[in-house]
Amino acid sequence: MCELLGMSANVPTDICFSFKGLKERGGNTGPHKDGWGIAFYQGKGVTTFKDAQPSHCSKVADLVSDYPIKSNSVVAHVRQANRGRVALENTHPFTRELWGRYWTYAHNGQLRDYRNLPYSRFVPVGTTDSEQAFCYILSELALKYPDGPRSRPAMFKFIKKLCDGLRQQGVFNLLLSDGDYLFCYCSTRLHYITRRAPFGQARLSDVDVDIDFAKETTPNDVVTVIATLPLTNNETWQAMGIGEARLFKAGQCISQF
Amino acid sequence: MCELLGMSANVPTDICFSFKGLKERGGNTGPHKDGWGIAFYQGKGVTTFKDAQPSHCSKVADLVSDYPIKSNSVVAHVRQANRGRVALENTHPFTRELWGRYWTYAHNGQLRDYRNLPYSRFVPVGTTDSEQAFCYILSELALKYPDGPRSRPAMFKFIKKLCDGLRQQGVFNLLLSDGDYLFCYCSTRLHYITRRAPFGQARLSDVDVDIDFAKETTPNDVVTVIATLPLTNNETWQAMGIGEARLFKAGQCISQF
Repeated sequence: MCELLGMSANVPTDICFSFKGLKERGGNTGPHKDGWGIAFYQGKGVTTFKDAQPSHCSKVADLVSDYPIKSNSVVAHVRQANRGRVALENTHPFTRELWGRYWTYAHNGQLRDYRNLPYSRFVPVGTTDSEQAFCYILSELALKYPDGPRSRPAMFKFIKKLCDGLRQQGVFNLLLSDGDYLFCYCSTRLHYITRRAPFGQARLSDVDVDIDFAKETTPNDVVTVIATLPLTNNETWQAMGIGEARLFKAGQCISQF
Repeated sequence: MCELLGMSANVPTDICFSFKGLKERGGNTGPHKDGWGIAFYQGKGVTTFKDAQPSHCSKVADLVSDYPIKSNSVVAHVRQANRGRVALENTHPFTRELWGRYWTYAHNGQLRDYRNLPYSRFVPVGTTDSEQAFCYILSELALKYPDGPRSRPAMFKFIKKLCDGLRQQGVFNLLLSDGDYLFCYCSTRLHYITRRAPFGQARLSDVDVDIDFAKETTPNDVVTVIATLPLTNNETWQAMGIGEARLFKAGQCISQF
């Protein structure tokens, strides 16, 4: 399996603290040693750091955990390979352009019969069930909304229905972002925490690091972090329900399906 | 304007030495301070480091110039903005998937009337002439070869014709890769050097760094580096002709159009 990490924030925010925890799960405190990746949105642009090596000993992951890259929306993943060999083309997150927007996707779980999932406009490059499911979702979106959706909330409801179908074929925990929105779907395990004023201290579970968010933020900041399992051990994370989707924008949950 | 850097190699090779030179041109020895990016292919997979900051003082660029990321095909760019504001979404290289392959593109030059360039399947995310020309080229490819080309060399001849047309609208120096091939089109300025045994020493023009390639290579290695202007001052680089295209694979020039 794998672990997911996402962030939605109302001001450009770095994810160094949370990523420090996640990166240890990539081969040190967790078995997810088969590659890792992280995508940072800045406006409509996105930059993705990926590596087929374990994150806990990757020089690139060291940079990402130490150097504050400010972003409003982040999607990250550490991989334990099940479908598809260990290789860069099989490393999450995956990104495609649709309607002049970059869509970035990371998946935790595995799917039976994924080879029967139809895709048309978007074609997998690698050999994972995850990427095939991504190409299926985007191809269905392109078919349903050839000129783009008039209503984004309605579009995310449609994506939620596709996820409900995919969940019937196995485990399908998902993070999906277009830079503005972060869509999260829970098939088995996904947790989130929304931090806002008054900010307090937080301590990572996987490595001896703590932070005082009051020193790093302004009173108006709202930042939600989503992870497969809670990353800190002195805060209360919310567990999402099975089959539940949440849509975040600018740090806030704006819809729950 | 901007500067381009590309590499094609028959064995996974790092580009630290060449990138050290290019990154100085991003705001130090050159005026190209409006962002930079570099894409590394490993097999069919690609990872891209991008930053809207000047490369010469970017922490991410420091990592790329010091940490050897091995690749068979590289496309890099330092930007001096003309069309489109300084922003991540306007930073080269740009990547899109077509026929289950990632295509990566960087452009040096500027185009008049680029807003009239038609595109269909691929839509620009940012506001540059460069990205619109990329979406035009890929949209034309998708229309001409809906199921992918039977002959890749014929397809690259078709791309060359599109470039000939684009060159009529301004300056259009281009690097384009699908991971296997590196296609280079010269509208005004593009140079290349193919290094093979016996390997010698090289000295960068932009910063006081030299290398002995004999110590870094095996006798079978073949590595071609392409750049807007030569990066070293003690080797002979080949200038490409105006309107000339070259196709590299595994370090060798396999076609010249």
